[in-house]
Amino acid sequence: MNTFGQLFRVTTFGESHGPAIGCVIDGCPPGIALDPEDFRHDLGRRASGRTRHTSQRHEDDVVEILSGVFEGMSTGTPIALLIRNVDARSKDYARIAGQYRPGHADYTYSRKYGIRDPRGGGRSSARETTMRVAAGVVAKKWLAERHRIVVRACVAQIGTRKPAQMDWDAVERNPLFWPDANEVADIEAMLDALRKSGDSLGARIDVIADGVPAGWGEPVYGKLDAELAAALMSINAVKGVEIGAGFDAVAQRGTEHRDAMTPQGFESNRAGGILGGISSGQRLRCSVAFKPTSSLRLPVASVDVEGHPVEVVTTGRHDPCVGLRAPPICEAMVALVLIDQALRHRAQCGDVIHDIPGVPAGKE
Amino acid sequence: MNTFGQLFRVTTFGESHGPAIGCVIDGCPPGIALDPEDFRHDLGRRASGRTRHTSQRHEDDVVEILSGVFEGMSTGTPIALLIRNVDARSKDYARIAGQYRPGHADYTYSRKYGIRDPRGGGRSSARETTMRVAAGVVAKKWLAERHRIVVRACVAQIGTRKPAQMDWDAVERNPLFWPDANEVADIEAMLDALRKSGDSLGARIDVIADGVPAGWGEPVYGKLDAELAAALMSINAVKGVEIGAGFDAVAQRGTEHRDAMTPQGFESNRAGGILGGISSGQRLRCSVAFKPTSSLRLPVASVDVEGHPVEVVTTGRHDPCVGLRAPPICEAMVALVLIDQALRHRAQCGDVIHDIPGVPAGKE
Amino acid sequence: MNTFGQLFRVTTFGESHGPAIGCVIDGCPPGIALDPEDFRHDLGRRASGRTRHTSQRHEDDVVEILSGVFEGMSTGTPIALLIRNVDARSKDYARIAGQYRPGHADYTYSRKYGIRDPRGGGRSSARETTMRVAAGVVAKKWLAERHRIVVRACVAQIGTRKPAQMDWDAVERNPLFWPDANEVADIEAMLDALRKSGDSLGARIDVIADGVPAGWGEPVYGKLDAELAAALMSINAVKGVEIGAGFDAVAQRGTEHRDAMTPQGFESNRAGGILGGISSGQRLRCSVAFKPTSSLRLPVASVDVEGHPVEVVTTGRHDPCVGLRAPPICEAMVALVLIDQALRHRAQCGDVIHDIPGVPAGKE
Amino acid sequence: MNTFGQLFRVTTFGESHGPAIGCVIDGCPPGIALDPEDFRHDLGRRASGRTRHTSQRHEDDVVEILSGVFEGMSTGTPIALLIRNVDARSKDYARIAGQYRPGHADYTYSRKYGIRDPRGGGRSSARETTMRVAAGVVAKKWLAERHRIVVRACVAQIGTRKPAQMDWDAVERNPLFWPDANEVADIEAMLDALRKSGDSLGARIDVIADGVPAGWGEPVYGKLDAELAAALMSINAVKGVEIGAGFDAVAQRGTEHRDAMTPQGFESNRAGGILGGISSGQRLRCSVAFKPTSSLRLPVASVDVEGHPVEVVTTGRHDPCVGLRAPPICEAMVALVLIDQALRHRAQCGDVIHDIPGVPAGKE
Repeated sequence: MNTFGQLFRVTTFGESHGPAIGCVIDGCPPGIALDPEDFRHDLGRRASGRTRHTSQRHEDDVVEILSGVFEGMSTGTPIALLIRNVDARSKDYARIAGQYRPGHADYTYSRKYGIRDPRGGGRSSARETTMRVAAGVVAKKWLAERHRIVVRACVAQIGTRKPAQMDWDAVERNPLFWPDANEVADIEAMLDALRKSGDSLGARIDVIADGVPAGWGEPVYGKLDAELAAALMSINAVKGVEIGAGFDAVAQRGTEHRDAMTPQGFESNRAGGILGGISSGQRLRCSVAFKPTSSLRLPVASVDVEGHPVEVVTTGRHDPCVGLRAPPICEAMVALVLIDQALRHRAQCGDVIHDIPGVPAGKE
Repeated sequence: MNTFGQLFRVTTFGESHGPAIGCVIDGCPPGIALDPEDFRHDLGRRASGRTRHTSQRHEDDVVEILSGVFEGMSTGTPIALLIRNVDARSKDYARIAGQYRPGHADYTYSRKYGIRDPRGGGRSSARETTMRVAAGVVAKKWLAERHRIVVRACVAQIGTRKPAQMDWDAVERNPLFWPDANEVADIEAMLDALRKSGDSLGARIDVIADGVPAGWGEPVYGKLDAELAAALMSINAVKGVEIGAGFDAVAQRGTEHRDAMTPQGFESNRAGGILGGISSGQRLRCSVAFKPTSSLRLPVASVDVEGHPVEVVTTGRHDPCVGLRAPPICEAMVALVLIDQALRHRAQCGDVIHDIPGVPAGKE
Repeated sequence: MNTFGQLFRVTTFGESHGPAIGCVIDGCPPGIALDPEDFRHDLGRRASGRTRHTSQRHEDDVVEILSGVFEGMSTGTPIALLIRNVDARSKDYARIAGQYRPGHADYTYSRKYGIRDPRGGGRSSARETTMRVAAGVVAKKWLAERHRIVVRACVAQIGTRKPAQMDWDAVERNPLFWPDANEVADIEAMLDALRKSGDSLGARIDVIADGVPAGWGEPVYGKLDAELAAALMSINAVKGVEIGAGFDAVAQRGTEHRDAMTPQGFESNRAGGILGGISSGQRLRCSVAFKPTSSLRLPVASVDVEGHPVEVVTTGRHDPCVGLRAPPICEAMVALVLIDQALRHRAQCGDVIHDIPGVPAGKE
Repeated sequence: MNTFGQLFRVTTFGESHGPAIGCVIDGCPPGIALDPEDFRHDLGRRASGRTRHTSQRHEDDVVEILSGVFEGMSTGTPIALLIRNVDARSKDYARIAGQYRPGHADYTYSRKYGIRDPRGGGRSSARETTMRVAAGVVAKKWLAERHRIVVRACVAQIGTRKPAQMDWDAVERNPLFWPDANEVADIEAMLDALRKSGDSLGARIDVIADGVPAGWGEPVYGKLDAELAAALMSINAVKGVEIGAGFDAVAQRGTEHRDAMTPQGFESNRAGGILGGISSGQRLRCSVAFKPTSSLRLPVASVDVEGHPVEVVTTGRHDPCVGLRAPPICEAMVALVLIDQALRHRAQCGDVIHDIPGVPAGKE
């Protein structure tokens, strides 16, 4: 289960402090122009050490394309991508190999496998998400070129702090993916204080996809929203996923929630662009809850591998708010779901001819 | 994609107003005692017409076992279950065959397939969830007999109304799955008023599983929480899924969120029983957001299949709060995820011998 | 694993003497005209009791369509097909419930599952192949309408007897699927003698598909020939599968085996229409070896379920040459592989534009 | 579809003359001791350049373990293996980039993908089988340690030449995998003459597995024999697969073919160790037909990529009999099927308790 997707299949491998991480992308359509440079932008957006607010581990994250590309074009055969780990300081973690870090996968990996690689969290480290982003680059490229689809994500909340305005154009102009340019300095000050305190905060990430045509998604168990939920929930530290109105729908009335339709388009988008598990042609809207980092220099009670009580203090490099690096990862997972559903859709419904009029996307 | 699960695989079929609905359960362990009577309890809990607050369609929902059971025991071959549709009033829906009901899958099915069965919503009807519940009965039986696992769900919120106390024992003593016995009369009054108004409300369902051993779940893309998210999000009308603290984790600090461990067990359960995608041995905790029913007798703007504006009014039988029938469905989906992960776990890790002490479940 | 296919997925269920057999076809393209009558022809070709040379069990094999079809057209949702078992004489088999029939799955099912349905072979009965043929009808229809593909099979050998000529037009004009019309009376006499002797014979079935375009098949593990091999080997009683020259290739020289290409087409077809796992545009050619029936009235040594030696004599209805009913089953399996590969091909390569000339099919 | 297996999943990547080939093994049980040295033996057995009768391309084939192994033990996370290509002489192939080699995948890859990597056959090269052998090493290790299963293969026929005796002990004592030690010099002379002639020959490979317990295999479409057929047919140049008696079963009578059972074991093994798709506890027996190499220095008619007639002559390094390198590949594929079925069996049937006596393996 280190493979994601049914037709556009991504298999990732590698541990945080092992020799390398990598992935194999199988089922990729042929004829996509691909170059190692293509990965630089999104990997840079995800990278740690990008601001003073994220972990100071520096990985160059240079992607080597091992297969599946000939003279700069995808050939339809598996695309293998490799990144060597160069800045893996395993000694930082040696001390806690005999302990379980609360809030981490240390204990559960031990219970499952009877063995674990403790160096930097091994396979359960967020380092694995690098390859999701890399695979997402290929998916985004195809979605953009073939369907003009754009997938974007922003930090929509840190702790209790929400942006006053939602300006998608502002998001990429600051390293915090914050959608209100006026507040960036404020947020940076808040994060500085947080880091100084030794504690951490959770975050909410909003992800949207524009340009998704109506008709993608496979009822009943392969619903577009079900697969988005799995994709996003599979990211480290995620505790919740919403589509459209999400949990706000609980308190809404039917007359309020349902999105009226007119020849000019949908009147609202509380559904988040999905009805019955199938895209409606509106903007796709998801929200994701990231928990606060558990690895802190502030001590916490735990047990060691022999069952004795210990106090755990983490001194390695960690993010005070893991959500700050999450937007490119969320985008990647949404893009991977979309390309997979797109291929599945044309497999089954490639011959469908519509003689009925479509409804425009309408209001978002 | 009408199949759920990898090893314990459930394939459902059938439309709301077609001749029958059914499912095939493949990969079921042999030796489980099974009788048509086993399905009566949970199907009764899901059935419409159980209270005056749910749709008045009456289905007997008598399950016929067509295969896979010999002399009352599962044989390891596919178990086919069939329920004939007997109270399907298609004429109620004839009028709106040419229109799209806002908030429903009518439009998206048409866009995807170029054709749709409009009778009662066809395949997109909640009628399909009957077979999820039926398959869940088999899963629950195995989980209880083999692992003493109990899966339960309740209605934890209707609209803005939350129960004053969370008494799991009270849940099954009232037809609303409400966890505070003192409030049931109140809630019923609220629902009567709601039905009279012609409007509907959303609901929040909480699901728990007790007794899940540590070690179930497959990183990285088959994480237990990722599969729970997909399973629950695939239920009709669901807009959000949370594990443990869920979206509350956004506002929490790391020192607050991480669950300390002691030789006596976990000190809290904000993780919801899952760490790194693998069960920790604690209670599994999920929450699910159900949107309010969109089919109302209060009119809404829409378009017909030729793109002209129309006003849609639904006069058929509908639930003012679909969440009221959801607990057994949510339980079933969680049970299906658990049995599948249990089988996958023993496939890969069946030989793991632990010489390390386990941590008790601790506080919930 | 009672599901076949990746995108066009067929799940079968049912035991020989249970209440019913059936299947669910998921992933079927929408818009195919389907009627219960469509199944009559091929089910009739497979049916026992069609000649005096096959088992005298009479099944009407009337297919009920339970879902997935609306007003005579497939809707893209799962198509469930059901056939009630009406002539299941379980008493014939009661005596051998405590014994293992050599050459049958009795013993291995018991070892695997610890329990088995002994009535008529239960799930391991060839009765299951009825639903393969039914699902194949849908596949054949799409292949014919969408791609003008025709799949045909014949009996190419019974025991040591081979037809003097290979006349595909003759095959459907006699109930033995024999490709030489002049020999049919001869073969019938041979079969009468065989049945009288109480013994049985094996058979070789040839299957061809005309009209398959170049480009179908997924290297490396989803090769077209690999999937054909699995599909055909999964049929009861099959012991060998060949593509093109098959085992004759062992004794061939490279200069003899390789099929030369010219602008007018391939010069020969020893490859059987597949190169590197991908169709070449030539006729697809497979051969299948069916073993002789093991259930005979001539006694054989065996053991009972307590391990004691017994003599097994089978008095039920059985075919002296199971191969005589195999052609429609082989055709169905080939058709199921082809439609699945066709859908997978257009998923990945739907945008491929060829500016290079194709090579005509050429000689067969 | 570059992934093989359902629970023990092997994904391979890489082209013949690309930077590297590799694989990812997912779902591997934890706790298997693994070292790069473990791969040397089988990779050496498969390697070209091992005798003067195989292609003179020299690859060191040194395996780098990139992940999934910690302190010499498998951890249950994906095992990535990498081999750099060091002796890839692409210039040998430059001339035929514009032509299609008859008997090769050049034409079909072009038709499928619209683009192909012509260097050394790209992805369709037998170079890919290196990673099958590497993955097979891990499978064999687990099968041997956990179940004492031994998988072996030999060359059972070259052209029309068959060994006089079948001595499994002799097989590994000569580089031709020939089962009659007295004939090795003869065969070498035959191969020298063949190479000198510029032509090639097909071969038949026999594969056996001893120690497979009764009960492995998943009816109906995941039958052990069906999966073996797919696994073996997926190897480059294979045109036929037989289980047990194979095509000889066509000419056999039922009284001759069925294997009688006694308390002392089976009286024969024409079934090849599989009944109803499930292992019987007897020796597993398969045969595989390999076609003769198509790439020869003797000219053949073909077309170029513009459709014009050309004469193709191959001057690169090629095997006059590809079957000579096939035994380790066949063993690997059988081992991969067996470990996957073993894991699936214990997933579903891990709790089956047999109170019935088993039948010993008996005669082979």
